[in-house]
Amino acid sequence: MKQRIPLEVAKEIIRNNLPDLPPEKVLLAEASGRALAESISATINQPPFACSLLDGYALRAEDTLGASRDNPLKLKIVSQIFAGDRAERQINTGEAARIMTGAPIPEGADCVIGQEKTDRENDKVKIFQELNPGQNYAPAGEDIKKGELLCSRGTLLRSPQLSVLASMGLERVDVRPLPKVALITTGSELKAPGEQLEPGQIYSSNNYLISARLEECGAEVTASLVAGDNKIEIKEKIIESLPGCDFLVTTGGVSVGEKDLLLSVLEELGAEIFFWKLDLKPGNSILCAKLDEKVIFGLSGNPAAAVIAFDLLVRPMLIEINSLDHLNLKKSRAVFIDELKKTSPTRRFLRAVLVSSSRGEVVKLSRGRRRPGILKSTLECNCLLDIPAGSPPLKSGQEVEIYQLPELYNY
Amino acid sequence: MKQRIPLEVAKEIIRNNLPDLPPEKVLLAEASGRALAESISATINQPPFACSLLDGYALRAEDTLGASRDNPLKLKIVSQIFAGDRAERQINTGEAARIMTGAPIPEGADCVIGQEKTDRENDKVKIFQELNPGQNYAPAGEDIKKGELLCSRGTLLRSPQLSVLASMGLERVDVRPLPKVALITTGSELKAPGEQLEPGQIYSSNNYLISARLEECGAEVTASLVAGDNKIEIKEKIIESLPGCDFLVTTGGVSVGEKDLLLSVLEELGAEIFFWKLDLKPGNSILCAKLDEKVIFGLSGNPAAAVIAFDLLVRPMLIEINSLDHLNLKKSRAVFIDELKKTSPTRRFLRAVLVSSSRGEVVKLSRGRRRPGILKSTLECNCLLDIPAGSPPLKSGQEVEIYQLPELYNY
Repeated sequence: MKQRIPLEVAKEIIRNNLPDLPPEKVLLAEASGRALAESISATINQPPFACSLLDGYALRAEDTLGASRDNPLKLKIVSQIFAGDRAERQINTGEAARIMTGAPIPEGADCVIGQEKTDRENDKVKIFQELNPGQNYAPAGEDIKKGELLCSRGTLLRSPQLSVLASMGLERVDVRPLPKVALITTGSELKAPGEQLEPGQIYSSNNYLISARLEECGAEVTASLVAGDNKIEIKEKIIESLPGCDFLVTTGGVSVGEKDLLLSVLEELGAEIFFWKLDLKPGNSILCAKLDEKVIFGLSGNPAAAVIAFDLLVRPMLIEINSLDHLNLKKSRAVFIDELKKTSPTRRFLRAVLVSSSRGEVVKLSRGRRRPGILKSTLECNCLLDIPAGSPPLKSGQEVEIYQLPELYNY
Repeated sequence: MKQRIPLEVAKEIIRNNLPDLPPEKVLLAEASGRALAESISATINQPPFACSLLDGYALRAEDTLGASRDNPLKLKIVSQIFAGDRAERQINTGEAARIMTGAPIPEGADCVIGQEKTDRENDKVKIFQELNPGQNYAPAGEDIKKGELLCSRGTLLRSPQLSVLASMGLERVDVRPLPKVALITTGSELKAPGEQLEPGQIYSSNNYLISARLEECGAEVTASLVAGDNKIEIKEKIIESLPGCDFLVTTGGVSVGEKDLLLSVLEELGAEIFFWKLDLKPGNSILCAKLDEKVIFGLSGNPAAAVIAFDLLVRPMLIEINSLDHLNLKKSRAVFIDELKKTSPTRRFLRAVLVSSSRGEVVKLSRGRRRPGILKSTLECNCLLDIPAGSPPLKSGQEVEIYQLPELYNY
């Protein structure tokens, strides 16, 4: 399939070939940042029993009728209840229980008075005021009622959700799985940082770019391998990394030069080739294939082209799996306050910067050169400008369509 | 120091007692999400040498003068240069080099033509057009110039920054350290999730709440221990966890009941007590002390009170260390569109929800009960309402001061 296909068609093809990964059962302590794969309702009341809100005395409100500073009520302290204790002894008329915050209210008692408002005399406590039933105590289920919905399917688990689920006694929850992705960076010119650069060589940065980018959209990077520009090496790395992953991402080796080898390697391995051209700029070379039931994304070796294709195509597919929607692109509109002199015969995505201004959200192009090999312009980029095919030059003040990158690129 | 002290005074006391933790040197591959402790300028040009933007032929532009479809120019192919190769052989008049994307431009050549615009005949290539010097090639330093500032001190490292630094050949960078925090949750009523609940017991949720919250502001949780309400156990856990951490956070045991033991344990251990009351609600009981040069935060056992004190006091101190400013509270103003009937004799912080509306950002109170023991109202809370001491009831439409929680609580 060599014709250039529209982005939306490409996404549909991949979506139809996504693996059906089951939810993962994880310990609550390891579920932070994950999306729930199930809706969870309260299995118990919280608190599970009526409990005291204060350190003080539990008693019967009716006993306090007429009590005042001049006419104190004396109650006999018949028990002492700490948090975690059972409330074994019932409270009868004329009796009180010493009680701590969080301790269960004993049978018979219907209110609590704070200790600082009382006087203690040996096994007696003096009360100087009237109390109402229910005063200073939390009935069972005051916070959470058994049966009520706590977190719906897809909820992102942060500290508040985790503590609410813990209060139910849940030890494990079902969460959406994190897709496992292997990364192969190709290029004989690549040297690892820390090594000595020879003439003609550059430092490998795409593996850092894509590996971190994968983690930034909630994937687990199972391998990050580098291969030179030769078929045997690329084939070996694919065979080595494919069994441990759900997706394979490569960079480089997807254009038309004599050393662009990925397509022929994949064909030799018997992969089903979905497409290798998209009808947009940059990213005329994005190979997409399937081998051993795994979708393979072959990105450009040019970093900016690679990262734009990644965000448009790879990112949303990973998020279909992990449901971490806050890490996806968000389509919106903004006022363009820059200038683009070129016409756009083909649909074009440009790195851009969205900023808040007195005129609302406005967008300008990322500074510096826009060529796909340029790395620096990705530094401040927090959105992509989506320019339809056939557009004339863009003028300042016109409304444009953008894809906002997730919030994490805004800092 | 038993008087209630203002929040700002408390913060100043702690700030003056923060440990002076040195930067950490980490591998670039492990630096994602960290803040740079140094400014970094380019140590080399990127690209390091003039290189081809296309798969094609490198040649001398002056040779193409007068070339056209009807008057093709024939050049002799004298070398073949792949990415990663040295460009050893100079190009003279009448010569061309077969060249791949990213490969170095050989001496003598000053432009590149794409292979699809040429015809090849054995060791000759036919050119049908005139070319300009500099066409289709990137000069050395086109992307990044040696010496230019790439990332300033404090920059948050995400995929774009990591790849730019990798392109410089940097293997390690100095980043701000992640504070190490030990957590002790106290309470004899606490059972771990998964265990059987006996009468009077509740499931421990504060350890999940605070442990995840610590990680959500960029701390490393070195221990999460549970202690019953007795001095020996609490003392043991403090002695056990203190050596491995920079800060100690506890929950529970800080009010005035007979089982509220933290203060006396700390005094016995010889800790310097900074304060244990703040002049705000909730959080009348926040113990702050220093032992073995480590600041200890004693939070309430009531989850909502604990988390509010955490966000107001612990969070900003951790961020002073790790410089992850995007995880801090952000002060702003919004229109209140709810009702608060109570007056506020003391400064009061209320859990609230900030939402965008046609009137701009508006804020309403978190639903449900507001007592400090209530867990559920933390679920949707994305900001705190800061109500000054002496405020009358709040009316809908009035402007209020808020502290926004970081973006991660908005999903």
